Amino acid sequence: MKKVALPLGKVYGLIEPGPVILLTTLRKDRPNVMPLSWHTMLEFEPPLIACVVSDRNYSFDLLRKTKECVINIPTATLAKKVVGCGNTSGATTDKFQTFQLTARSARRVIAPLIDECYANLECRVVDTRMVAKYGLFILEVLAAWIDPKVKNPRTLHHRGNGHFMIAGDTLALRSRMK
Amino acid sequence: MKKVALPLGKVYGLIEPGPVILLTTLRKDRPNVMPLSWHTMLEFEPPLIACVVSDRNYSFDLLRKTKECVINIPTATLAKKVVGCGNTSGATTDKFQTFQLTARSARRVIAPLIDECYANLECRVVDTRMVAKYGLFILEVLAAWIDPKVKNPRTLHHRGNGHFMIAGDTLALRSRMK
Repeated sequence: MKKVALPLGKVYGLIEPGPVILLTTLRKDRPNVMPLSWHTMLEFEPPLIACVVSDRNYSFDLLRKTKECVINIPTATLAKKVVGCGNTSGATTDKFQTFQLTARSARRVIAPLIDECYANLECRVVDTRMVAKYGLFILEVLAAWIDPKVKNPRTLHHRGNGHFMIAGDTLALRSRMK
Repeated sequence: MKKVALPLGKVYGLIEPGPVILLTTLRKDRPNVMPLSWHTMLEFEPPLIACVVSDRNYSFDLLRKTKECVINIPTATLAKKVVGCGNTSGATTDKFQTFQLTARSARRVIAPLIDECYANLECRVVDTRMVAKYGLFILEVLAAWIDPKVKNPRTLHHRGNGHFMIAGDTLALRSRMK
């Protein structure tokens, strides 16, 4: 996909609606990827995102040691690959190969971008005080990329046990909220 | 609306998809309500939810002082009221009266349930260590209520500046993820 840089002040509009994300990490030349839904914005600009990675996940150590990751946002056409990534572990599976995901080089971090995802956020871990208790990592978005052709992305939103809601209609109301 | 108790282990399925929520608080007999989208699950059971309330919001002091709130989840039919609650401040407006929201007594907390919302989560603040830096409150859900007739709720998901995505189609895939 051909993507353009997204101004950092617009990142919140991608994360606020609560999409499933694919978190990529890289260590010792091995990339890994896991889906997760437990994330929230913390600050508009520079954009801060909090996300939960359990210490039962293979990505936990990679994220803690490298302090870098990419948040990739898939749409519904990637649903089977997303679930596949959730049903396997990076400890035993090369998920990029198994699920035919294309790794692209990021600009600011060593973790790879997933080309098939319509948006990619390059992130650095900036606060680990809540990791021991909640697995909560605080990330700063250093660079953001988006496919400008995707206007109303059919993002996936997990309701539990492999049941997803797919982003539907849009509605615009006059608001003073950011 | 006639609601039933939702087992606490099922709460995550309501919050994971990222809906706009209406957070209610009560102090000195005055209820208040604000919409927000910056929240995430932290733990399945007992359910823990992290949510951001800025110190610029009137609800900030109410939440910090009472350490109690209710997370109410609206659907698209309430969109105008949700935006109305976001465009006004509890400092000068009785939002329940202005937007014709019905306050019902909660079982475990003093903050009110919003009857028109299809789900209500009664919460207690259990960790305030991240409040000073990020406005991040950690809540434990003490009781949860749901309208059992609502199977695929048309929840609102904010994309910024009053633009919302409304929950669309559902998709079920075989998953080992919770």
